[in-house]
Amino acid sequence: MELNEIFQAVQLASRKLGMMEADEVNRILRAVADEIEGSIAELLAANRLDLERMDAASPKYDRLKLTEARLLEIASNMRDVAELPSPAGIVLEERVRPNGLRLRKVSVPFGVIGVIYEARPNVSFDVFSLCFKSGNACILKGGSDADSSNRAIVTLIRRVLERFHTDPYAAALLSSTREAASALLHAEGYVDLIIPRGSGELIRFVRREATVPVIETGAGICHAYFDKDGDTAKGAAIVNNAKTRRVSVCNALDCLLVHKARLADLPALCAPLSRSRVVIYADEPAWKSLHGSYPAELLEHADERSFGTEFQDYKMAVKTVEDASEAVSHIYAHGSKHSESIVTENKETADFFLRTVDAACVYANAPTSFTDGAQFGLGAEIGISTQKLHARGPMGLREMTTYKWLIEGNGQTRP
Amino acid sequence: MELNEIFQAVQLASRKLGMMEADEVNRILRAVADEIEGSIAELLAANRLDLERMDAASPKYDRLKLTEARLLEIASNMRDVAELPSPAGIVLEERVRPNGLRLRKVSVPFGVIGVIYEARPNVSFDVFSLCFKSGNACILKGGSDADSSNRAIVTLIRRVLERFHTDPYAAALLSSTREAASALLHAEGYVDLIIPRGSGELIRFVRREATVPVIETGAGICHAYFDKDGDTAKGAAIVNNAKTRRVSVCNALDCLLVHKARLADLPALCAPLSRSRVVIYADEPAWKSLHGSYPAELLEHADERSFGTEFQDYKMAVKTVEDASEAVSHIYAHGSKHSESIVTENKETADFFLRTVDAACVYANAPTSFTDGAQFGLGAEIGISTQKLHARGPMGLREMTTYKWLIEGNGQTRP
Repeated sequence: MELNEIFQAVQLASRKLGMMEADEVNRILRAVADEIEGSIAELLAANRLDLERMDAASPKYDRLKLTEARLLEIASNMRDVAELPSPAGIVLEERVRPNGLRLRKVSVPFGVIGVIYEARPNVSFDVFSLCFKSGNACILKGGSDADSSNRAIVTLIRRVLERFHTDPYAAALLSSTREAASALLHAEGYVDLIIPRGSGELIRFVRREATVPVIETGAGICHAYFDKDGDTAKGAAIVNNAKTRRVSVCNALDCLLVHKARLADLPALCAPLSRSRVVIYADEPAWKSLHGSYPAELLEHADERSFGTEFQDYKMAVKTVEDASEAVSHIYAHGSKHSESIVTENKETADFFLRTVDAACVYANAPTSFTDGAQFGLGAEIGISTQKLHARGPMGLREMTTYKWLIEGNGQTRP
Repeated sequence: MELNEIFQAVQLASRKLGMMEADEVNRILRAVADEIEGSIAELLAANRLDLERMDAASPKYDRLKLTEARLLEIASNMRDVAELPSPAGIVLEERVRPNGLRLRKVSVPFGVIGVIYEARPNVSFDVFSLCFKSGNACILKGGSDADSSNRAIVTLIRRVLERFHTDPYAAALLSSTREAASALLHAEGYVDLIIPRGSGELIRFVRREATVPVIETGAGICHAYFDKDGDTAKGAAIVNNAKTRRVSVCNALDCLLVHKARLADLPALCAPLSRSRVVIYADEPAWKSLHGSYPAELLEHADERSFGTEFQDYKMAVKTVEDASEAVSHIYAHGSKHSESIVTENKETADFFLRTVDAACVYANAPTSFTDGAQFGLGAEIGISTQKLHARGPMGLREMTTYKWLIEGNGQTRP
């Protein structure tokens, strides 16, 4: 099938989806969950073909690998999505104009959402469940490393869709070629939104190429600023949680900014990090403060590359600042507008930081590790938007809808 | 000044703007309005230089031309914007999580908005007032035809900003070169949003080139479907209003779809159009119905180009359809997702149309000419979005903000 024919078929499927009752949508999601549980051997066999082609020492290997436990968790997540309220069809606003026109602003699915991602087959199930739940058809473009897994996953989903007499093009998988990616990025009129999920390199490629609207997700260069009036015990816990809870995720801490008046507390602030063998790249004053208390083999001198880097590893930069203003300036210069935090007992300083820092999520006395749809109470999440258009921060089901205005009159005309 | 230096200066200005009190913003807008009224000779002189270079017979000439009356209206509009509530700083959502974290989702300015437009100098004032009101700095890239006018306008605005000790880079005008446009479209990290205002050609250029997020505005291929159960008097008024109120605007009617059972009423439906000398391109059944009643010199046979065309002129296509379903299909195939309408007394058919048509604004028994921010009660409008991301339909001040999440804790960590 030609790419254009696939896009047309998905668009047609999306129109039918938009008409489907919420109960039917949820029944299908639960049936897909059942099917996953009943097809574990089949999915693992397909995954094994991908794993055989992958170097087991590669960091990609673990992301690529499906296990029975992971598949059961995926099925369970799919049932959770079925339980959530539908985000479409909600009257967001209603007004009657002086001329009698009745206006309603109603949430509706986008239509067709394209998702481009790398070698993580679990994303295929994730994207399908969130798109289908919100009434959107999805076009999946996974990495070639996961091609066999992704084919098995989409085959499974379509088997269920057909059993429910639902258009199987509600989910389509493109071949894992660069041409397919390029066609998707230029499928104006067919694809309403593209979400890239993956590395900075993938996201830059999508941004450069796409003529279809894009929501960027991902890159997080996150800071914690320990203020003059910060509580040391809270600070140590927040820094440790933000840095070491999971180093590979986008909300992980990359740089600790410390007020110069609190350099003496830096050893206490950093002490828990040594248990996770975090390497610290410290500027001169911070280095002096940590020298002798923080393990010498984990303490390095910072250079220019230490700042503005997303480490995704047990590594962290430390910089000394004059005050909250300098901390904010550093974040403007080096952050990625994802998640930023301050530790302070001073309400005024906290308010200043919350007000002036330009990021999707700004924290006072809590770690950036909370940036997550479920932690925010938004339910399932398709990604963390780092742009400002449409959605910012965790994108849940609601952010997978747009709206339309419905206007009912009785023959009014405009003067 | 290098383009990059301008972008940096505007970004810096935007950060200060974000901190400005609403009262001060409104005082400055009113002062700009006063300054316009006091500088009419100066503005008209600058405009005259542009007009001298323009062919007076060109349709652009009227759009380019400023007059005392137009300037007074612009000043009055600017005062209206000052009276509107500020869209920034509004708590859109607030929740306390079980762990005690307090989350607030707060509306904030985008930061820097770039607007690319053609030879309409009034747009410069418009864009400035809406951006400034919503706390955004703006980068204006007007057409070269209006360069002298635009320079005078931005000089005037900056004079007032400086009088109020406000960073003049809250509004910047780029030179009217293609390189400047291209730099703006790629100013990632400096420009948060680009809005093109103008012809389809301009919008396509922006969509193709931009790596900064874009909201498309403009193109409207609008239909009215006269249903089996339509009221003829209402239909005639609606079609006439939608087609002839202003033919050059994006919400103007381009195609009338008529139910085959109501072909006999087509002469009555179209009768008012002949007073405005509207040329009708009718398909075969419609042509036969209109032949003899509609003026022969205004009645043409439709061909394929008649459908899916935005006429922006006293021209309209007419197509006969089997039923509401075929009308919806025709709109899917030929519409631009802008504004669509149905005329029917049948509630069920109206609901079907409202539910299934995929457009920013869907009308029952009212003309598409109502698609307008002020008509919707949204106050001033920066454009009509025809995409689905972020804003759909009329974009008012609220749509010129994004949001951020503020999270306040007391040392909580994530398990």
